[in-house]
Amino acid sequence: MADRIEPRLLKGFRDFLPPAQAARKDILHTLEKVFELRGFVPIDTPVLEYAEILLGKSGGETEKQVYRFFDQGERDIALRYDLTVPFARFMAQHMHELPLPFKRYHMDKVWRGEKPHKGRYREFMQCDFDLVGADTVSSDFEIMLTIYRSLKALHIDRFTVHVSHRGILSGLLADMGLGQKAADILRTIDKIHKIGEKEVAAQLEEYMPAAAVKRILELLHYKGGGSDIIANLTELMGKDPAPVRRLLDVLAFAGELGIAAHFKPDISITRGLDYYTGLVFETFLDDLPGIGSVCSGGRYDNLVSLFSKQTLSGVGASIGLDRLIAALDELALLPPVSVSPSLLVLRIDDDLTGYYHKLAEEFRDQGIAAEVYPEKKKLAAQFQAAEKKSIPFALVCGGREKSKDKISIKDVASRETFLEIDVSQAVSLIKQRLHTGQSS
Amino acid sequence: MADRIEPRLLKGFRDFLPPAQAARKDILHTLEKVFELRGFVPIDTPVLEYAEILLGKSGGETEKQVYRFFDQGERDIALRYDLTVPFARFMAQHMHELPLPFKRYHMDKVWRGEKPHKGRYREFMQCDFDLVGADTVSSDFEIMLTIYRSLKALHIDRFTVHVSHRGILSGLLADMGLGQKAADILRTIDKIHKIGEKEVAAQLEEYMPAAAVKRILELLHYKGGGSDIIANLTELMGKDPAPVRRLLDVLAFAGELGIAAHFKPDISITRGLDYYTGLVFETFLDDLPGIGSVCSGGRYDNLVSLFSKQTLSGVGASIGLDRLIAALDELALLPPVSVSPSLLVLRIDDDLTGYYHKLAEEFRDQGIAAEVYPEKKKLAAQFQAAEKKSIPFALVCGGREKSKDKISIKDVASRETFLEIDVSQAVSLIKQRLHTGQSS
Repeated sequence: MADRIEPRLLKGFRDFLPPAQAARKDILHTLEKVFELRGFVPIDTPVLEYAEILLGKSGGETEKQVYRFFDQGERDIALRYDLTVPFARFMAQHMHELPLPFKRYHMDKVWRGEKPHKGRYREFMQCDFDLVGADTVSSDFEIMLTIYRSLKALHIDRFTVHVSHRGILSGLLADMGLGQKAADILRTIDKIHKIGEKEVAAQLEEYMPAAAVKRILELLHYKGGGSDIIANLTELMGKDPAPVRRLLDVLAFAGELGIAAHFKPDISITRGLDYYTGLVFETFLDDLPGIGSVCSGGRYDNLVSLFSKQTLSGVGASIGLDRLIAALDELALLPPVSVSPSLLVLRIDDDLTGYYHKLAEEFRDQGIAAEVYPEKKKLAAQFQAAEKKSIPFALVCGGREKSKDKISIKDVASRETFLEIDVSQAVSLIKQRLHTGQSS
Repeated sequence: MADRIEPRLLKGFRDFLPPAQAARKDILHTLEKVFELRGFVPIDTPVLEYAEILLGKSGGETEKQVYRFFDQGERDIALRYDLTVPFARFMAQHMHELPLPFKRYHMDKVWRGEKPHKGRYREFMQCDFDLVGADTVSSDFEIMLTIYRSLKALHIDRFTVHVSHRGILSGLLADMGLGQKAADILRTIDKIHKIGEKEVAAQLEEYMPAAAVKRILELLHYKGGGSDIIANLTELMGKDPAPVRRLLDVLAFAGELGIAAHFKPDISITRGLDYYTGLVFETFLDDLPGIGSVCSGGRYDNLVSLFSKQTLSGVGASIGLDRLIAALDELALLPPVSVSPSLLVLRIDDDLTGYYHKLAEEFRDQGIAAEVYPEKKKLAAQFQAAEKKSIPFALVCGGREKSKDKISIKDVASRETFLEIDVSQAVSLIKQRLHTGQSS
């Protein structure tokens, strides 16, 4: 063909080859099990929605990044850029068909036309879980505990969930007569991990006197945990003790479950987004603090305000799967996932093709993944294929074996051969060797 | 908020509420297991690609249906409308990193702006599996066997895979001197199940004399299976016996595996698409023939011709998940999937919140899905919540039980209560009752 097209991907988009895709699927299955064990249930929403629905609430920054276009019917539509806005639309539409309080999880791709750079993609996965319909400390803690369980299930032990309550800083700012500018100030504080304390202090001085900046920075230093610090915090807070109370409670629950070491009060966590109103959290890996939060979330007053006159408060979090996988990879915590079957049925006689398929079925029926080598090749080449694909066992069967109802099995790595055995013996042998890890 | 947005979906798009989504996930997991047991491995490709790549090969009909637009960088891009074209691009790019022959599966959403009507959506799922790199009858049979195993795994017993070989009709047409018009004629024949034999005959007479039409229709009637019909077919075919040979071979293999009743030669199957060159198949449910094929596919000469000077032949099939689920639903074969946890920890004392979470964790550690009721409500209301969500067991624990390190369990359906037992006793009790199906 003369006019061939160069096979290539859009910048910021990725293919996943079998080992990488199998590892991703494995992680998703693990998280799915964690969520379902805790009563979260799955939902699905469309990738495409009316642009008005997806963009109604967001500011200019989001809008610029969204893949938005007119469809064949001249409808103004867009690809979802997160799983939260579609969830809000979903709840506004289906609230009355669902049991409230409601716990859902949703793990799927979202799209943002950001400048792609290391670890940032235009197509990426989010894993969201939320509990809506109950504004209680128990719900807040359930989300924190789910973050903890999710990371533990992925064999991550060294992580810390930084927790704050938006009300602490915004209460303080209101005290200072700065309630009007609270959103801007919180966004400035949110940048402290990126731009450093000095720069934040300089920017804050545009809003308030140096003494007030000092008081705020003092508060931001309360990260240590421990009851005396908490007591100081309560004193420092003044008028409305409820936000501090909520923060203290969830930390106490963590203590009761013996997992307090993984949770740390950190008033500098504000989450830039406007819709958070209560507890907020970000999760850092102790060994890779530089990659940023791998799981963030918080409590919002009303999920459905854009779409409904009803009120639905909730709390939730989102695991950034791509960032987390990159981290697991760097920490050598990505479990090796085999994408190969355990048995390759070699082809030594083309006339036995049907029989080879029948034999493979017998192994599959016993839970042993098997494939039939699909074309005629020298036996050495077929063995090589098994080695290259890390298939641990090969089955050899010619007319002579078939007439005796026997097969031979070869352990590909050790080259051991088991001649003329029954299928049932082969099944036991393979299961035992796979189980004891004697074969790779 | 004054300017509220009406929460609504685009036409042809769907939300999936937890029971429906859980059922879909369950089916996908089942298929995943079937594929992996047979040595198919997962890949992933982006939802968005250059329009040139997705549309290079397709005619006008597809183009009209594709969601295509310019991104922020003025690139001409589109949402994938199937999983085959992205797979072709993927193989052209990664062929040398992959072990050939290569078996992949890919199950995900695709988008087509078709007129939505009953059972047709603009966003829908495809489940593709292909074996590329070996043009052998063994590969053809492997795909047919995978279709068979997939439907069996979904508890469908009454189905028939109609099989033909494109070479049979096109060989006959070449014999008749109609090779040039073969593509148009095959597309006409492909419509026989929709428009009927009479109309097809009328349309064919535009291409050839009535006698030739008669000969073709005779061939189309060979659907019965059975060796005499096959013998006739060979005779009728004339010059090139290879296509008939291939068809006979796969049917013979099916016989050897004792599953011949599920496969039927049907020369009227041509698959409209131009890229099929060898065996072609469509799968019909015996009890719902009207819904059309639930799994179709075939062999293609060269998957990557559009993108590479190399040749990569293959064979594959695609399960139309939405159509299949609609069918399973209609046949009452959709297995009930519970989306509820097994245990609800009731809240009778807010001061025990941390303790309730700790108890729930103990059940989850034993594999029992549990949730903590997240807010203060009367006990009756909490029980009602358990009933409404079909949670079979409720845990009651107040200060008195806690001090004794005991809990009480209630079987929600039968109202039986087990007072002041240990967690370990409760775990055994629940497991036993869930296992024997004594509780719903």
